[in-house]
Amino acid sequence: MYTVCVRDHLMIAHSFRGEVFGPAQRLHGATYVVDLELRRPQLDADGLVVDIGLASTALGEILGEFNYRNLDEMDAFSGKNTTTELLARVVFDRMAQRIAAGGLGETARGLTALRVTFHESHVAWASYEGKLPTPASD
Amino acid sequence: MYTVCVRDHLMIAHSFRGEVFGPAQRLHGATYVVDLELRRPQLDADGLVVDIGLASTALGEILGEFNYRNLDEMDAFSGKNTTTELLARVVFDRMAQRIAAGGLGETARGLTALRVTFHESHVAWASYEGKLPTPASD
Amino acid sequence: MYTVCVRDHLMIAHSFRGEVFGPAQRLHGATYVVDLELRRPQLDADGLVVDIGLASTALGEILGEFNYRNLDEMDAFSGKNTTTELLARVVFDRMAQRIAAGGLGETARGLTALRVTFHESHVAWASYEGKLPTPASD
Amino acid sequence: MYTVCVRDHLMIAHSFRGEVFGPAQRLHGATYVVDLELRRPQLDADGLVVDIGLASTALGEILGEFNYRNLDEMDAFSGKNTTTELLARVVFDRMAQRIAAGGLGETARGLTALRVTFHESHVAWASYEGKLPTPASD
Amino acid sequence: MYTVCVRDHLMIAHSFRGEVFGPAQRLHGATYVVDLELRRPQLDADGLVVDIGLASTALGEILGEFNYRNLDEMDAFSGKNTTTELLARVVFDRMAQRIAAGGLGETARGLTALRVTFHESHVAWASYEGKLPTPASD
Amino acid sequence: MYTVCVRDHLMIAHSFRGEVFGPAQRLHGATYVVDLELRRPQLDADGLVVDIGLASTALGEILGEFNYRNLDEMDAFSGKNTTTELLARVVFDRMAQRIAAGGLGETARGLTALRVTFHESHVAWASYEGKLPTPASD
Repeated sequence: MYTVCVRDHLMIAHSFRGEVFGPAQRLHGATYVVDLELRRPQLDADGLVVDIGLASTALGEILGEFNYRNLDEMDAFSGKNTTTELLARVVFDRMAQRIAAGGLGETARGLTALRVTFHESHVAWASYEGKLPTPASD
Repeated sequence: MYTVCVRDHLMIAHSFRGEVFGPAQRLHGATYVVDLELRRPQLDADGLVVDIGLASTALGEILGEFNYRNLDEMDAFSGKNTTTELLARVVFDRMAQRIAAGGLGETARGLTALRVTFHESHVAWASYEGKLPTPASD
Repeated sequence: MYTVCVRDHLMIAHSFRGEVFGPAQRLHGATYVVDLELRRPQLDADGLVVDIGLASTALGEILGEFNYRNLDEMDAFSGKNTTTELLARVVFDRMAQRIAAGGLGETARGLTALRVTFHESHVAWASYEGKLPTPASD
Repeated sequence: MYTVCVRDHLMIAHSFRGEVFGPAQRLHGATYVVDLELRRPQLDADGLVVDIGLASTALGEILGEFNYRNLDEMDAFSGKNTTTELLARVVFDRMAQRIAAGGLGETARGLTALRVTFHESHVAWASYEGKLPTPASD
Repeated sequence: MYTVCVRDHLMIAHSFRGEVFGPAQRLHGATYVVDLELRRPQLDADGLVVDIGLASTALGEILGEFNYRNLDEMDAFSGKNTTTELLARVVFDRMAQRIAAGGLGETARGLTALRVTFHESHVAWASYEGKLPTPASD
Repeated sequence: MYTVCVRDHLMIAHSFRGEVFGPAQRLHGATYVVDLELRRPQLDADGLVVDIGLASTALGEILGEFNYRNLDEMDAFSGKNTTTELLARVVFDRMAQRIAAGGLGETARGLTALRVTFHESHVAWASYEGKLPTPASD
């Protein structure tokens, strides 16, 4: 299995609901350094897992929707705790949609799995990984 | 699959038995920077993989038993080479026991796998990963 | 010159005033991984620059005042942009006061300079460094 | 599952063919920091995944064939784009052959999988991982 | 003294002349992860060392002149060994010129020193640092 | 001012005397990742701060005297606490002697300063830096 990873980051404000979060129930924020891993069993005709330029641009656009925002005020997260693990899942889902829609190029349809990791400090990170749906053959 | 990782470290002395270890047969030591990864397929009701505070405390307590010790003198390692890979396994086993005993909270029983990584320098690390036993349903 | 460095981190929300800040004028946040460097030309009688335990505790307490806070609402920052470089300076000043007051132990009065670095992402950091006032001789 | 990882690096020149590579079609180069992960379900009699000295030496020898070279001029890569992901695969294959030939010692035949990661910058890496063939029993 | 640092990278091919370089006399290449540190004793009216957006853009443009190039073929380096330390100096000089010309904004004229670091692997880096010329008062 | 840095590591056992050390009074150990920085104001005729191969070899030899040792049993440290900061100084002094003796080559006599940093974990490091004696002119 081949993997390619690209890195970007975003900076957000948010707060959590629930006693388990302790002082993080107050409005605070985070820098997340985000790693996007893309996987497939065979390389494409150019010897690539994916066009790394398209992958980086797509990651930047997805993160850009949240960057410099207070997540507490975004409809996308209404009624949810925007934990690091949940954010990793949200980025996973949006990237999976883009790939299915051809946003990373036609050969990117050969991708079979993704992993999205959010590093929140030098001592903690969270990730979500999963398989991509198999494209229907024509 | 979701993963959350927390990091801590410990500093120990030890020696190895066996020609394969070369100069490391002498009494020496190591700093291990330790990553504990906790995995589950679904988030709990708070949107979490685990209470990260409880996980960090548990990791610190497990490492604390060995921290600032000469492992050659500890009964737990009698007759064994305390290689980096073995130490990762020992921490894995103790963390698995704590989780089964409820030490990371009730919702942590939803955890399905762990990985423990011991970084021993900027050029070498070792890890042990495995599934957690499925809790018996009531 | 000897230097010892200890690391900690904090997570805050804030916003900036001024066109130069672009989208960072919106309420957002950051994780800052903070390095505290302490310097002196000679070691103390124990062979130390400083009691690293006291230094780590002091750093944690200083950061604790701001951790999980919205800096826009804190009197300490009224009318100021809480830029990364300003925050480094604020932590520098508070640490210098603690050292002068004996909070890092008597031998810490031999410290002659500090540097405080705030890492805000994998691609940017800021620091403030300066000399400590020379203690009056008795 | 146990994993041990050793790190080395190499510095090469190369160019790519295909519009997808943009300016990287020009002759340029890269430093690759290379991680070799070796995996097995049980430790050997010494408590090891592998003799880390032999593994490091083998990795250095494999990388040495390419180090300080222009890959465009090497027969091994004739007609191929030497992408980061392809290079990871090439090192994987050569390491697998060495292990099968006993080059990492007899107990290294207990290894069941490898992963080779090429870090090409602070924001991108690629890897290839796979199982090792099961040795025929005698 | 305040410092702000921004990071970028470039990938180049080159070769060296001189026996001291050993196998690096062959055409090879490198990824350089580049840190630009900008220093001044007082913050500007916005609480900044420099407009970090302008600094990042300027660094990217300066590196862009060399990125994906064979340095052996560039007039700028004719007759010179493009060692890591020399490259750091070249970027320092070009950035100093930009600052003097107002390319990082008017308040950036308050900058008093720069440091440029080229990380060439996980085990080696080189830098050049120096003071900036004091602007003539009008 | 130009700087070149090379990295290596060592693994030792030791203990400390003095209440300030708390549990570190017990026999324990550490991995130190060691950075050697070499400085000079002008490059040599090859465009170098130093022959990086000779510098790396010299660092390895100096560290090799202590590697895989119990420092409590070495005459060199009799009656001293082998703190991280002291070890950095010891390596500094030995490297300075080697340079003065021509061990890093004749052009290395142009070096004017060194810094030696010992990273002991992901949250702590110590260093010693100083000028080198000016060689007597003949």
